[in-house]
Amino acid sequence: MRRALPCFVGIALGLAGLACGAEPRAETKLAQAKPPISAEVLESSQPSDWRRPDPVNTLYLDMPGGRVIIELAPRFAPEHVANIKALVREKFFDGLPVGRVQDNYVTQWGDMDEVRQSEAAKRKLPDETAIALGKSMPIVKLPDPDSYAAGTGWLDGFAVGFESAPAGQVWMTHCYGVVGVGRGDWPDTGSGSELYAVIGQAPRHLDRNIVLVGRVLRGMELLSSLPRGAGPLGFYTDDEKSKRTLIGSARLAADLPESARSAIEVLRTDTPLFARYVESRRNRHEPWFVRASGHIDVCNVSPPVREVK
Amino acid sequence: MRRALPCFVGIALGLAGLACGAEPRAETKLAQAKPPISAEVLESSQPSDWRRPDPVNTLYLDMPGGRVIIELAPRFAPEHVANIKALVREKFFDGLPVGRVQDNYVTQWGDMDEVRQSEAAKRKLPDETAIALGKSMPIVKLPDPDSYAAGTGWLDGFAVGFESAPAGQVWMTHCYGVVGVGRGDWPDTGSGSELYAVIGQAPRHLDRNIVLVGRVLRGMELLSSLPRGAGPLGFYTDDEKSKRTLIGSARLAADLPESARSAIEVLRTDTPLFARYVESRRNRHEPWFVRASGHIDVCNVSPPVREVK
Repeated sequence: MRRALPCFVGIALGLAGLACGAEPRAETKLAQAKPPISAEVLESSQPSDWRRPDPVNTLYLDMPGGRVIIELAPRFAPEHVANIKALVREKFFDGLPVGRVQDNYVTQWGDMDEVRQSEAAKRKLPDETAIALGKSMPIVKLPDPDSYAAGTGWLDGFAVGFESAPAGQVWMTHCYGVVGVGRGDWPDTGSGSELYAVIGQAPRHLDRNIVLVGRVLRGMELLSSLPRGAGPLGFYTDDEKSKRTLIGSARLAADLPESARSAIEVLRTDTPLFARYVESRRNRHEPWFVRASGHIDVCNVSPPVREVK
Repeated sequence: MRRALPCFVGIALGLAGLACGAEPRAETKLAQAKPPISAEVLESSQPSDWRRPDPVNTLYLDMPGGRVIIELAPRFAPEHVANIKALVREKFFDGLPVGRVQDNYVTQWGDMDEVRQSEAAKRKLPDETAIALGKSMPIVKLPDPDSYAAGTGWLDGFAVGFESAPAGQVWMTHCYGVVGVGRGDWPDTGSGSELYAVIGQAPRHLDRNIVLVGRVLRGMELLSSLPRGAGPLGFYTDDEKSKRTLIGSARLAADLPESARSAIEVLRTDTPLFARYVESRRNRHEPWFVRASGHIDVCNVSPPVREVK
């Protein structure tokens, strides 16, 4: 029986080299001048369209299965990011478990058993669930409606929502792969001793309810494919605890020698090329597609990441 | 350090019994008359608010880790659903592998290696990516904007998008857990010999590009937590093939004795109670929340499933 072609769900994750063939499309109603597909946009990129994440804001979680690379977002949550860095530099996370994996929701790790003490980290941090919307902020805006926010787009490479009223605010959105800080009931904002990553449908109702501090650039599968916890809300039960995945070490890239760093770069979001990339995602013209959406959700565009050659 | 309370990301998956305490909220700006939270809505449900999926349209995939239960959607794709049933009744899927797991996208299973022949299934099927929008269709509509569709809601318990113009159409949306039919290039719509389930952020750009046939009611974690394939687009490589998960058997519930069936029921979507449930998801009033969204994406409401007592 006919096999679904590999191009079936194409380059959704920015896998530029894997695009389907560029044969003329059987359907012509969409493609008048044949706009470029994502793979072609990326192939046309220049070195200046890419950036290397700042090592000071790059967090490595070295796990049994490999390295998770997280880009921290100090513009959005400066004090929480500073706290996480303080914890990392104390080696606070080393040997701590992934303690919760809730299907279609979050993977959470850190001091789940409340066994560690920190000397350097603060226990009380301010509300950093959103920042003031500045008039000159270089937000790259999406034209499409969003179910949750007045507007969406990207700032500093992170997906954001924003509104002008009642209070001008911009905030990181809970897209797949975003990293946040576990907390108890408000006004506790969490110290950073427990972090989570979104592993399912974007739980956008969490936006502005909890502090986000970055996003996973590499290694999401190490967090998303873990066994789901059998306890309530995906926490591992006592019976499962002995099988929890442990964090070997958590380090900032800046604290490692160059030879131990991962050489990756991220597509800049503040360029004409990124605008073309987004447009190629809003309207898919790969041969496999019958119909272009004409729209996109901000969480369906993940700024591509590649190895540095 | 402060542990994130279990209520952290509460009852997002309809885990009614796990709601956080119902203490008065510190924040009062949202809660004037204290609308019910999801757990309270579900606790107030009557037996008539639930339905047992029709055994004729209930597909079991019995896997090494347990049972995946899929509710088929004959209203939306009658010929594809009929073909899948014909394949199942030939025991076509028994022993076939999960051959593809692409992170934040799809898990795909079936005749990935093109080794089987079917006597009963058709090879060519009509376009069933959408159906005509009927004036009296009992679509339960969401009031919120959607990034992709003119309107969204539920029909027969399935999340849908719809539009009145240019052609009145309604279609199942690619939400987490939806099941579709792999295909090659159009006009091939796929025979049903390869199926996929969405395991990440809703790839709504696939809506009306590929035929959807149902959704997973139980056992999503058996599909979503599998190791990601190392090959392009998440296909397992030749080196990985020996470790692929195999489908023990695929059966329709109707073809099994009662004792071998899973007794579950699904919250009806065509009831006043479901409307209250959706409202409780649009505006979260559990104590943990600081801010209610006031909106929701159709893919963030999954009609709850429970065991029959």
